[in-house]
Amino acid sequence: MIDVAAFSFFKLVIFGVGLIGGSLARALRERDEADGKRTVIGVGRSSASSERALELGVIDAAAALNDDAALRDALSGADFVLLAAPVAQTLPLLERIAPFLDASTIVTDAGSTKSDAVAAARTALGTRIGQFVPGHPIAGRESSGVNAALPDLYVGRNVVLCPLPENTPQAVERVASMWRATGALVREMTAEQHDRVFASVSHLPHVLSFALVEQILNSPDAALKFSFAAGGFRDFTRIAASSPEMWRDVCVANRAALLDELDAYTAVLARLRTAIEAADGAALEAVFARSRVARTEWQEQRAASVAPSDASK
Amino acid sequence: MIDVAAFSFFKLVIFGVGLIGGSLARALRERDEADGKRTVIGVGRSSASSERALELGVIDAAAALNDDAALRDALSGADFVLLAAPVAQTLPLLERIAPFLDASTIVTDAGSTKSDAVAAARTALGTRIGQFVPGHPIAGRESSGVNAALPDLYVGRNVVLCPLPENTPQAVERVASMWRATGALVREMTAEQHDRVFASVSHLPHVLSFALVEQILNSPDAALKFSFAAGGFRDFTRIAASSPEMWRDVCVANRAALLDELDAYTAVLARLRTAIEAADGAALEAVFARSRVARTEWQEQRAASVAPSDASK
Repeated sequence: MIDVAAFSFFKLVIFGVGLIGGSLARALRERDEADGKRTVIGVGRSSASSERALELGVIDAAAALNDDAALRDALSGADFVLLAAPVAQTLPLLERIAPFLDASTIVTDAGSTKSDAVAAARTALGTRIGQFVPGHPIAGRESSGVNAALPDLYVGRNVVLCPLPENTPQAVERVASMWRATGALVREMTAEQHDRVFASVSHLPHVLSFALVEQILNSPDAALKFSFAAGGFRDFTRIAASSPEMWRDVCVANRAALLDELDAYTAVLARLRTAIEAADGAALEAVFARSRVARTEWQEQRAASVAPSDASK
Repeated sequence: MIDVAAFSFFKLVIFGVGLIGGSLARALRERDEADGKRTVIGVGRSSASSERALELGVIDAAAALNDDAALRDALSGADFVLLAAPVAQTLPLLERIAPFLDASTIVTDAGSTKSDAVAAARTALGTRIGQFVPGHPIAGRESSGVNAALPDLYVGRNVVLCPLPENTPQAVERVASMWRATGALVREMTAEQHDRVFASVSHLPHVLSFALVEQILNSPDAALKFSFAAGGFRDFTRIAASSPEMWRDVCVANRAALLDELDAYTAVLARLRTAIEAADGAALEAVFARSRVARTEWQEQRAASVAPSDASK
């Protein structure tokens, strides 16, 4: 049992019961299996994934997104709504939810990009924007779907909240307490700051990792190359096994910040290319040595604070 | 005790008793501690590292590279010489060794690049080039030095040999049997083929990983970015903690093949940039999906054949 902050809810509705939504549900449910008052309802695009979530006991009930009556029942009296679908679905989901949303329900999301989520919420919720508290749990695995959901996925992980001027402190605290109840550490920043930071340390590395596998696939001796790829390749490309749909949406939603980072990275590569072509060992070693020191210090600081089994994004 | 092929030697001289040379010595010595006839002599640039190797019992004796008498004694009657220093030292080391080299001694190396090693050997050994059998154990760790040496580093790993026309089959087989004795799998290819393959699956990923850390270090909010970097960053940049000297030398020695791969990679990135800027989700998803399938298949094929604790390059 995880040692977590106090948190209670009566009705949580999760749109997209996959790795992220399913892990939140499992974390909250495993805290107090006995408390029958709590209900977690899953709403999904496919009945297959909802049925699987029911089989696994991740949710108490499932509702179909395209069923007005079921959706109204699901949302009626809900404490929380969590959007945990690929980020391109944030706007259509909020537009679908809006007509059935109680004034007392707090809506949050788990999207890897935040500026687009805020824009979508302002469009869909209008004057009720204060009910939407943007969030991003920094946890994931290259495996996706409800089968990959873990009750301890968020233990020791950062969850970023990007409060809006329209949010009440109480609404922000309720969302924060929900995440703290999973064992997560809640931190706050602006949506713009969030998108710049994660374009750099998460979105760009995913693009770079996908790109390396793509390059090898495009080469005539791909099979030979893969047959000699070892541990360095394995770790460098682990994130190239991530969900194509999720990362497609992230790249599109955060393209402004991502393009800035990609261009800065391309400039670094161009500098290294010049040094390699000139056989300028001193210039290469200077860069490599700086990187080694920074990466080693990062690992040491992290080792003290994060579970060794961490596979979070 | 590792189940390995039969192999015997009387005198092995290792130039550069670090991770690679030290792990070979430990693997061979741990096979038969009782056989006192075997001698492993370490030759290094610094007496400190040789003393550490002696302390650890990795070698039986140490010789200083700049001591003619000690070097002559070390090389006299040696079965094998292994060069396991950064690849830029291959030529000066072979020129230093040549005057003291018995006609019966087989020289091999562990360099990550092979065309340059062959050129260096032809320059230094001339008509005795047949005594040099180029090799590359595909095993390493981001940690370097004799303290990181492991007796089982090579178990289940590939060792590539790039035999020369001048090598006798017996000389190649002797080197192959030495590596098989460590539990490694020996494979053969040409030096050119080797350098192209490893530029793609090893050298380029190292450059890309170092480059990401360098880019973040160059950004004004580096500390904030590092504080939110998680598992994806961790694995993508593990190899950015590798030896700057080793990778400087690899990049310079294999720059022709590496530049080809870097340019092909930059072209893939340019395609992805166009798709990101155009918000072309379909184009991005197609690339990401192809990569995910290939990376997943690679992992599945690998899982059956390699130790899970693999940290090889």
